[in-house]
Amino acid sequence: MHIAQPFNIAGVGTAVPECLVTSEELEQTLGLPKGWSEKYSGVRTRYHAEHETNSQLAAQALRQALDRAGLQPKDLNVVISAAATYDYPLPNNSCMIMHELAPEVEGITCLDVDTTCLSFLTGIDYAARLLASGDAQRVAVVSSEIASRGLNPDHKESATLFGDGAAAFILERDPRGQHGLVRQRMQTYPAAAGYTMIRGGGNAKPFRDYPYDPVMHSFHMEGKILLKYGKRILTTFIPEFFADLPLKYDDVDWVLPHQASKTALYLYYKLFPVPEERKLSNLETRGNCIAASLPTLLAEAIQSGNILPGQTCFLVGTAAGLSIGGLLWKI
Amino acid sequence: MHIAQPFNIAGVGTAVPECLVTSEELEQTLGLPKGWSEKYSGVRTRYHAEHETNSQLAAQALRQALDRAGLQPKDLNVVISAAATYDYPLPNNSCMIMHELAPEVEGITCLDVDTTCLSFLTGIDYAARLLASGDAQRVAVVSSEIASRGLNPDHKESATLFGDGAAAFILERDPRGQHGLVRQRMQTYPAAAGYTMIRGGGNAKPFRDYPYDPVMHSFHMEGKILLKYGKRILTTFIPEFFADLPLKYDDVDWVLPHQASKTALYLYYKLFPVPEERKLSNLETRGNCIAASLPTLLAEAIQSGNILPGQTCFLVGTAAGLSIGGLLWKI
Repeated sequence: MHIAQPFNIAGVGTAVPECLVTSEELEQTLGLPKGWSEKYSGVRTRYHAEHETNSQLAAQALRQALDRAGLQPKDLNVVISAAATYDYPLPNNSCMIMHELAPEVEGITCLDVDTTCLSFLTGIDYAARLLASGDAQRVAVVSSEIASRGLNPDHKESATLFGDGAAAFILERDPRGQHGLVRQRMQTYPAAAGYTMIRGGGNAKPFRDYPYDPVMHSFHMEGKILLKYGKRILTTFIPEFFADLPLKYDDVDWVLPHQASKTALYLYYKLFPVPEERKLSNLETRGNCIAASLPTLLAEAIQSGNILPGQTCFLVGTAAGLSIGGLLWKI
Repeated sequence: MHIAQPFNIAGVGTAVPECLVTSEELEQTLGLPKGWSEKYSGVRTRYHAEHETNSQLAAQALRQALDRAGLQPKDLNVVISAAATYDYPLPNNSCMIMHELAPEVEGITCLDVDTTCLSFLTGIDYAARLLASGDAQRVAVVSSEIASRGLNPDHKESATLFGDGAAAFILERDPRGQHGLVRQRMQTYPAAAGYTMIRGGGNAKPFRDYPYDPVMHSFHMEGKILLKYGKRILTTFIPEFFADLPLKYDDVDWVLPHQASKTALYLYYKLFPVPEERKLSNLETRGNCIAASLPTLLAEAIQSGNILPGQTCFLVGTAAGLSIGGLLWKI
């Protein structure tokens, strides 16, 4: 199988905030009947950041990845923050991650990419191109998300669904061209942009003119419309993705769908079945961690030895925008 | 000269808000003596968005670029939003740009990159890689910024310095490899991350817990420290950038420094002189438009016939982070 953009994984790391929140606790706080969260969102436990920031979680995950790779921060050429949430509106968060991890290290390229829940796929694509061209020797892609500070407690679905966490991948050149990115594709359906939003806090509804309002300044989604859209676009996206590849969907070793929600995962597996022994999920124990969901799932499966070098992984999902994306990776 | 990532310019476009603000008007509003703005910030007029959004200005610039290229929105494969400001914290702004421009067009990849003031350089680098590999035929890079909604009126330097605007570049494959990106480099100095910030509105100081405060929720910079830093890093960055290139700094046809401020430009030209006839600037008539400054300057010079195909341009500047970046482009 042709590797379009070769690279190796040098190390992976993950981090979660200290505070574990059980669905029982959350149901009490939100005034929901016992068992509601697991039944509707599919989440039993998740972590909520009480004192941590995005860059702290990111630096923790990246330090773990560096330690496992036997590397120092100065060994990195590029740090890509691939996430939808951030410490500050300015500067870009990769700078804050390096400010947290190793402020004394000068000269690394810090850049951010954002395709909301699919940001990790975009980050890997850019990193792969930097490595394959020889312009970088080692690139870190870090997805760190704190969803919990932007949730409306009156919107039960999202208030029980989301969790916080971070994952970091250190990628390095693979001169033999045997591992890395086979294909990455992303497609946006802008007519559906309004169905997943945080309305307040940008230039459309600036802080200056719109005081805090839990509806305006929190995550909002039209779940039912999005599921319909998702079904339609998945149905064509996946066959097209694999149409001219020698490897077919059913031959991929591991399929990792974005941990969007219980219903989204159910719908996904109904359309594109995966045998039980090749399913991977962390929705139940982590919740939907926005862009950190997929790399956390992948990093932990690599670290535990579930996913082995040489195996193929297909990362796939939908994101606010509305975008759909897939990435085929030979580990 | 070797073109590392070839591409051609198919069309360029720019847009500004309706409302032109003269320094005289602004000085009256801010209670400053007449002439203060031109003397200290170097800005005589700038545009401030009264009713426009980032995506509206972006769509206007992109429509102009498409018209000049004789293209339709559906002819694009990828739209990259390369900016520090946005309509909404979610979704990513490229989706909102397409939502504004052509919501019915499905399947274009919409992705955002952010390296604050240098975002356009990152966007061009990513676009160039997509085009050179053949993974995309046409990519739009759009930098649209509304700075005026995040300014503290008590901070005279920034209140008089910034302006709003947008610029769009449509790039397409250059199979002959004669035009495009020669080199792009960016380096971050994270110890200086705290010197340019908007402190409120992200996860570090969430709006839920920190109500609007013109200091916390506005742009803040430590101008004097940054100028010192900038001087130090420029002094090594530019010689290193050109060290192993056949083209030397003095042989570049056009040098376009980021329009950061009058003092920054003065310092830049003092360190790295450019003959008067090869200087380009729009600080006086536009203000510092964050990431939109450089592409606006470049697009207008191309459109007016000042910069000609085959000529070389060096885009250079510093950005919050603190990052320094340069891009050598054969037009």
